[in-house]
Amino acid sequence: MTITVYELDGIDDVRFSPFCWRTLLALRHKGFDDFERVPVSFRDRTPIAFSNQERVPVLADGDHWVNDSWDIACYLEDAYPGRPTLFGSDMGRAEALFINAWTQQIQTGLFNIVLWDAFQTVDPADREWWRAARQKLFGPIEAYREGSEEKLASWRDSLEPLRATLRVQACLSGDAPAYADYILFSAFQYTRCIGRDDVIEKDDPIRQWCERMMDLFDSYARAAPALGS
Amino acid sequence: MTITVYELDGIDDVRFSPFCWRTLLALRHKGFDDFERVPVSFRDRTPIAFSNQERVPVLADGDHWVNDSWDIACYLEDAYPGRPTLFGSDMGRAEALFINAWTQQIQTGLFNIVLWDAFQTVDPADREWWRAARQKLFGPIEAYREGSEEKLASWRDSLEPLRATLRVQACLSGDAPAYADYILFSAFQYTRCIGRDDVIEKDDPIRQWCERMMDLFDSYARAAPALGS
Repeated sequence: MTITVYELDGIDDVRFSPFCWRTLLALRHKGFDDFERVPVSFRDRTPIAFSNQERVPVLADGDHWVNDSWDIACYLEDAYPGRPTLFGSDMGRAEALFINAWTQQIQTGLFNIVLWDAFQTVDPADREWWRAARQKLFGPIEAYREGSEEKLASWRDSLEPLRATLRVQACLSGDAPAYADYILFSAFQYTRCIGRDDVIEKDDPIRQWCERMMDLFDSYARAAPALGS
Repeated sequence: MTITVYELDGIDDVRFSPFCWRTLLALRHKGFDDFERVPVSFRDRTPIAFSNQERVPVLADGDHWVNDSWDIACYLEDAYPGRPTLFGSDMGRAEALFINAWTQQIQTGLFNIVLWDAFQTVDPADREWWRAARQKLFGPIEAYREGSEEKLASWRDSLEPLRATLRVQACLSGDAPAYADYILFSAFQYTRCIGRDDVIEKDDPIRQWCERMMDLFDSYARAAPALGS
């Protein structure tokens, strides 16, 4: 059985989509390390035309395909129950859905800060498409060119529940990481890929946790191409 | 074995502490319904002097006692593994700790809105103590006398991760409630007890979930005394 992940691609093979990173890390957690990664550009979703929708990631497992990072994680958990668990239990899965929703809020706040940096990471051929799509949500992207220390400070404050948890236990999922960790870490991996890992301060417990996440699976996330790397 | 919960008491036997509610609901979830509830006033912690600390709730189980609502939940889960589970798995427990931390942030935002109403619910004999203690954290409590629609709107927005989760599943813990639900619901039970359940709008999915939580255990939370009830 061959597993394929269709994922967004940026400039210089930088794959920065936080949603796609959730899927990549879920696959590695489940012990898959020979899946294929197929780049999809922002402007051209032809590679995922088979899924009759335009969102990435899409995971194809033989003849079966799933889109949406949450549904993909649930699919992997249910289709491969003998492999390391992503959720621990039904209750763990349910709570991870809340963490998924919280991360959505955190990511929106983050996009609001690093939009200009993200733009630099988009393939030049995709920029026209990207600008039009993002402007609908965030207004003119030039407005994000100047840093906003105030927005950043408030965003860092909003991470306090994560910070408080990591002061007590090594990972969101307990002693060892699982899907809840990958959901959230993928947002920080996104900042790393677009050259903005300064959003988390050096002495923040969140950074130490990020470092551990980057070490996982033979430094899988750390080895990923990043803007300017 | 006799279980006793020492909990904060307000005017007219209104017991509004959200932390104490977490413990009461955890006990009911574990199938305990004959535990004793001992009121403790804000100004006089003599009933819990045995614990060598001043925080409530305190749970005494025979000769053993535990304080801090989170530690109490963990104690009940570990001491009574044969009774209905509060966390589902170690991973569920770890994720619930994050929800506990998130709720702390939500509760602080809430206190910032309803402080004056909370003050009305404090036993007159405790008000001098309470005012002094709260002013250290929140400034003069008279400043909270006038409602703030703006703070309330922003607080409601901050609940979006809960709302989004409840659009997909009946409870934070999945199909049925467990400790993650009790953590968060206890903040809303607090608003109910102090006569401010208007903080959640009528058509909000959070309200329907609150109604279900109030139905649990023979309407245990619904039957509790509330200010003006």
